[in-house]
Amino acid sequence: MSTKEVESVESILNKLPTKDRNFLMQVLYGRLPHYRLGPSKDSLKTVTDLEIVSCQFSCNEEQLRPPRKVTVGLLQNKLPIDTWAPITEMRKAMYTMAKEVLEVAHAGGVNVFCFQEAWNMPFAFCTREKFPWCEYAEEAETGPTTEFLKKLAGQYNMVIISPILERDVQHGDVLWNTAVIIDNHGDYLGKHRKNHIPRVGDFNESTYYFEGNTGHPVFETEFGKIAVNICYGRHHPLNWLGFGLNGAEIVFNPSATVGALSEPLWGVEARNAAIANSYYTCAINRVGTEVFKNEFTSGDGRPAHKDFGHFYGSSYVAAPDGTRSPGLSRTRNGLLIAELDLNMCRQVRDVWGFQMTRRLEMYAELLNRSTKMDFKPQVVKKSS
Amino acid sequence: MSTKEVESVESILNKLPTKDRNFLMQVLYGRLPHYRLGPSKDSLKTVTDLEIVSCQFSCNEEQLRPPRKVTVGLLQNKLPIDTWAPITEMRKAMYTMAKEVLEVAHAGGVNVFCFQEAWNMPFAFCTREKFPWCEYAEEAETGPTTEFLKKLAGQYNMVIISPILERDVQHGDVLWNTAVIIDNHGDYLGKHRKNHIPRVGDFNESTYYFEGNTGHPVFETEFGKIAVNICYGRHHPLNWLGFGLNGAEIVFNPSATVGALSEPLWGVEARNAAIANSYYTCAINRVGTEVFKNEFTSGDGRPAHKDFGHFYGSSYVAAPDGTRSPGLSRTRNGLLIAELDLNMCRQVRDVWGFQMTRRLEMYAELLNRSTKMDFKPQVVKKSS
Repeated sequence: MSTKEVESVESILNKLPTKDRNFLMQVLYGRLPHYRLGPSKDSLKTVTDLEIVSCQFSCNEEQLRPPRKVTVGLLQNKLPIDTWAPITEMRKAMYTMAKEVLEVAHAGGVNVFCFQEAWNMPFAFCTREKFPWCEYAEEAETGPTTEFLKKLAGQYNMVIISPILERDVQHGDVLWNTAVIIDNHGDYLGKHRKNHIPRVGDFNESTYYFEGNTGHPVFETEFGKIAVNICYGRHHPLNWLGFGLNGAEIVFNPSATVGALSEPLWGVEARNAAIANSYYTCAINRVGTEVFKNEFTSGDGRPAHKDFGHFYGSSYVAAPDGTRSPGLSRTRNGLLIAELDLNMCRQVRDVWGFQMTRRLEMYAELLNRSTKMDFKPQVVKKSS
Repeated sequence: MSTKEVESVESILNKLPTKDRNFLMQVLYGRLPHYRLGPSKDSLKTVTDLEIVSCQFSCNEEQLRPPRKVTVGLLQNKLPIDTWAPITEMRKAMYTMAKEVLEVAHAGGVNVFCFQEAWNMPFAFCTREKFPWCEYAEEAETGPTTEFLKKLAGQYNMVIISPILERDVQHGDVLWNTAVIIDNHGDYLGKHRKNHIPRVGDFNESTYYFEGNTGHPVFETEFGKIAVNICYGRHHPLNWLGFGLNGAEIVFNPSATVGALSEPLWGVEARNAAIANSYYTCAINRVGTEVFKNEFTSGDGRPAHKDFGHFYGSSYVAAPDGTRSPGLSRTRNGLLIAELDLNMCRQVRDVWGFQMTRRLEMYAELLNRSTKMDFKPQVVKKSS
């Protein structure tokens, strides 16, 4: 009855040339030295150097529900022009790029499209400069980027998630890191503000905006119930859980993250969230290196510099059953098109039963207790 | 400033022979067809066909705290004799194996040792037979296995975690899936009962035992604060969080899991828990195939059979910074010896700040609300 099972992942990785093996170990396991390889010669169709990867997640047919197939599009893109270009020029270049990509996405059958975090501007929060970056902020419902995308969303019958820097003019002109949701008729549906704000590495983003006050909204669209966990919120299982409790079937995670600190985590977190909550997750990272005009320091002993490292792309989709798509490249603009059958969410819930077995009451009580100043952790010591 | 970054994990995997690549994709991404390879010819030292893998996790030196190095030992082992052997013989064979391995672990400097789930018996819960399997149950504090290990723990100055089937004679003779913690002086320190019980695939373990009633205890030992998340509890981020809230530095996850359903999840969940909670996790799976005397069915349309698939081993350790050890094999008995510096936990907390930024109050409130019968999910729809 015993079968000759494959020895291990490692035993196969060891067959690779040392450099390749080390790279895989770095990404999959973390913390090996960095090195470089030339670009791969893949044979993918390209549009303006846009890598296009497509894949499909399927599940069982059911008797009472038809399949609920939804195609998502995830875009990772470099800045088309220099970071210090005038804002109007940057916007123009971004809109040109976006228009072209959305046309491709439409041709690829995309129903729900998501851009990367703060997609229409440089990721300038490392600089700690307020000028000119705060000027990129715009009103969620009526700003130029929302207006621009509303037209295309209606034209292409596509829900579009547009993560921007938001200016809330109704409440003292404050900024937020916000995802705007535009429905497939070109109407503004709502917004969500980033729940967890990093103070790590090059980024204390609370220089610009605070922890979001929009809860964990789930947006009911014609293509399923969707939600947005913005960037650093992916490190927080409770944030993912919040969207799950509210009924999300797809949670997008538009991000901007670089280098050795986060790359070993990248393939783990959004994927774990898909598993734990039995929904789809779509992890989108920026790609490329953004160089700024003025130098800045990073609080890590290094000399001042003008960029904070390489956004490694590698955007991917993870499914409720733990499978995941190939990643987009670490180096190029890329569009990941994935067809999802949303019926998989409930099928996996029925198979694994995580929702039934999760004992939320016990944890509600524990979390309540743990936030009290007189919280006594449950520690077992030897009585002596 | 732009560097030639490596293209992608996939581009390197594509250099491998198709079979190898498919295997890696299966394990890392899931859901490719199964196939077989011969055993690898690794050059590891062996004792009674015991693969030994050792590794080390280190972190920065600090000014005020010396390094806190602790060596853990994780054992994955096949049954030494047939599942239907008499209980006394099975115990004897298991104790002989354990004694030998603990001697090796001691020679390897292990401070805290953990066995796989229900380590001293076949994983017979698929059979739904009460006889003879319930007879394996023993009292946590005074049972023969605890008595046996107390001597060795004292002799080797080693904390031992012994996951067993517990019989609670004080409360109506009920059974529990329990981990017993024996300290390095050979004294019983305490126990923890599995918090989440599966009803999936071949296992509705509630045929034998219910959800644990011991909370999320952390055991304060001379080698750090440890906890045990038993098997199916690894799918529940809140269970991992519970041990974190109580101060765990290392959480062991003794498991018993097989096949295509869980293998793509195996490398993700315990690793994500290490990241999210900034502690070490030690994931231990059984290895080998256990064949039973009487046939049973699995509720999946397949004919009756006598085994429920291959336990794929692949035990590993994950660190707070997201790095992980190589896995033990998918096929052989194995001992993973990992030296951890517990100082890494707080260092990662300071760097990433997940504990500071996690907004527990918000989630305590959400969890409270979500358990109410009149819970209204936060859903945004178009008003029409």
